[in-house]
Amino acid sequence: MTSPKRSRRSLVRPLVRGLHAYTPGEQPKIPGLIKLNTNENPYPPAPAVLRKVRLAVDGRLRLYPNPTAEALRAQLAALHGGTPDHLIVGNGSDELLALAVRCFVEPAGAQPDSASTVQFFAPSYSLYPVLAQIHGAACRAVPLPPDFSLPGVPALRRAGQYDFNAALTLVTTPNAPSGRGYATQDLDRLCAATRGVLVLDEAYVDFAEEQALELALRHPHVLVARTFSKAYSLCFQRVGYFVGHPDLIAALQKIRDSYNVNGLGQIAAQATLEHLPYYRRNFARIIQTREKLSRALAARGFRVLPSSTNFLLAQPPAPDAGTWLEALRARKILVRWFKNSPVEAYLRITIGTPAEAQALLRAVDDFHPQGVPNPRAR
Amino acid sequence: MTSPKRSRRSLVRPLVRGLHAYTPGEQPKIPGLIKLNTNENPYPPAPAVLRKVRLAVDGRLRLYPNPTAEALRAQLAALHGGTPDHLIVGNGSDELLALAVRCFVEPAGAQPDSASTVQFFAPSYSLYPVLAQIHGAACRAVPLPPDFSLPGVPALRRAGQYDFNAALTLVTTPNAPSGRGYATQDLDRLCAATRGVLVLDEAYVDFAEEQALELALRHPHVLVARTFSKAYSLCFQRVGYFVGHPDLIAALQKIRDSYNVNGLGQIAAQATLEHLPYYRRNFARIIQTREKLSRALAARGFRVLPSSTNFLLAQPPAPDAGTWLEALRARKILVRWFKNSPVEAYLRITIGTPAEAQALLRAVDDFHPQGVPNPRAR
Repeated sequence: MTSPKRSRRSLVRPLVRGLHAYTPGEQPKIPGLIKLNTNENPYPPAPAVLRKVRLAVDGRLRLYPNPTAEALRAQLAALHGGTPDHLIVGNGSDELLALAVRCFVEPAGAQPDSASTVQFFAPSYSLYPVLAQIHGAACRAVPLPPDFSLPGVPALRRAGQYDFNAALTLVTTPNAPSGRGYATQDLDRLCAATRGVLVLDEAYVDFAEEQALELALRHPHVLVARTFSKAYSLCFQRVGYFVGHPDLIAALQKIRDSYNVNGLGQIAAQATLEHLPYYRRNFARIIQTREKLSRALAARGFRVLPSSTNFLLAQPPAPDAGTWLEALRARKILVRWFKNSPVEAYLRITIGTPAEAQALLRAVDDFHPQGVPNPRAR
Repeated sequence: MTSPKRSRRSLVRPLVRGLHAYTPGEQPKIPGLIKLNTNENPYPPAPAVLRKVRLAVDGRLRLYPNPTAEALRAQLAALHGGTPDHLIVGNGSDELLALAVRCFVEPAGAQPDSASTVQFFAPSYSLYPVLAQIHGAACRAVPLPPDFSLPGVPALRRAGQYDFNAALTLVTTPNAPSGRGYATQDLDRLCAATRGVLVLDEAYVDFAEEQALELALRHPHVLVARTFSKAYSLCFQRVGYFVGHPDLIAALQKIRDSYNVNGLGQIAAQATLEHLPYYRRNFARIIQTREKLSRALAARGFRVLPSSTNFLLAQPPAPDAGTWLEALRARKILVRWFKNSPVEAYLRITIGTPAEAQALLRAVDDFHPQGVPNPRAR
């Protein structure tokens, strides 16, 4: 039996037809390549975490995982304060960001308004506009000043670009891709002045001086996003969470997939929380490498921004960031370049091990383009 | 700093406020309880699969998984025919069903029409209306006849309840919760007559006489949903997939989360495909247990429907299904009862091991309510 002729194109919603998919950082399988492009942690999970996961790999894989990540939520509540009802666990924090858009923002009609607006600072996490577009919501990108600092509320009011009534505002803090950290006091003022839901996306907060989780427990319209991916070396297993008022959390729970967090991911995350000192030692090592690499790149003519994360945003000397990307790649160092973005002049460099930082510096010295001020070149 | 008074309730979309969340089957942790309520496989994954997963639990957990499940899609393409572009892998097939709703169906305005309709037969997978409601789409539930057979196209036209233009039609085949299998020829006729996207949800197909995957390769508007959860003993790791025309698959790829399938799940699924004979032996054992249990329950006064799945739908003798549910639970046997549904008179019983089937029969005999015809009671 064959189908009557039908236009395949018309089967897909016009909204979806018009989308360009989000491009995640490359995950190439090139032997010997040093991956400094997706902000993964260079250190493995704690040995005890790996043991716990290995021990769980048995006949129980045939069973559904706990649908609400009950035990993990209880542990997180004990860690952060609040109750398990203040917590939702997701298939990475990306899933939760997507859920937040669908939960709090109306698809935009002919006349986009605050109720249909997803707001974020530019630059910040490049996934946000993609999520807004997938949902058919309006995007409001509020430019950050050239130093990527968080504008104060009076400055935002004067500039008139920030919508204090936007249904959802997403704030990457510390900021990515700049690495700039924000003071909790300043975030608190922004939260207090904003009337829609505000997510503080703290994906990189473990590498920062301050964290703002208390704001999610204090403001009923504020959610804090956290992830086990980067700081806790668990990208592979997709576990993130939101902390916030039980009313917001309950609304998000209603619209997620029933078994959204895989079982071994839950087990890995639970074990991680039992070994936090191991991870804190790694944070200290990464911060040390970051500061050393920052100085070494500056000495080679890079303009390196201060970072409160596990990456550096650095403007290479001439020729240009795109050429540098290729030159480093040819030398088996992969970094990230955001073409056609407000940070097009920069490279984003994940902090790896000290040895990887050394390899990066060797590649920089090897490329060593003519005419670049490079006072420390050998 | 404290927030100005604001109504928390108004932060959540009216659509979401009105939702009732989907209730998955219980995952209780009662020692000694025999779980026959969520259609899990009683047999563990193949030993070689468990070994492969254990071996992958190392420092690589710090890295992101392959964002498009590339290797797994290549293996699935080799297994089913088609190319990797005919395949999308999801965080369980539930994620893909939710994506299909968002990809192909418009949220309903004041005047719901075919473009905003999610259509399914009743009864079938109870998640479908939940997904439609989350999206704000209209639901069209087309009643199945009392024997749960698939109505022919002329009968559907006569009854006038099936919308041949519905944006998305979801067909559970074999049907759940009835267990009834459908002939590929009949499904082909339904596909050919339907103009919107049609998903054949083959979650239970490995226990059936026929499978209809070829229809997804032949009809450009047909998708087949498969899962590693039930037949392949991997519920814990959340891996499902759709097969279909590359245009539909590409549209779904655009709106999924970037890293939607966890890494150990991908590895487990890949290893599973290398050990299919092990799983096929389990299918045969489960089918054998199913047929034996079916006869034994019939002999105890249950009206048992023929099943092409790993569960039985059975109407217990008096008093009523709800009372039986509790009576069996008190005897440490957990089955599923769909209260307030077209199958409220029935229990759905997952096929476990032969020993679990024996335990169920002992519990039935023990409850043994007065006045029930029970010719084989000891």
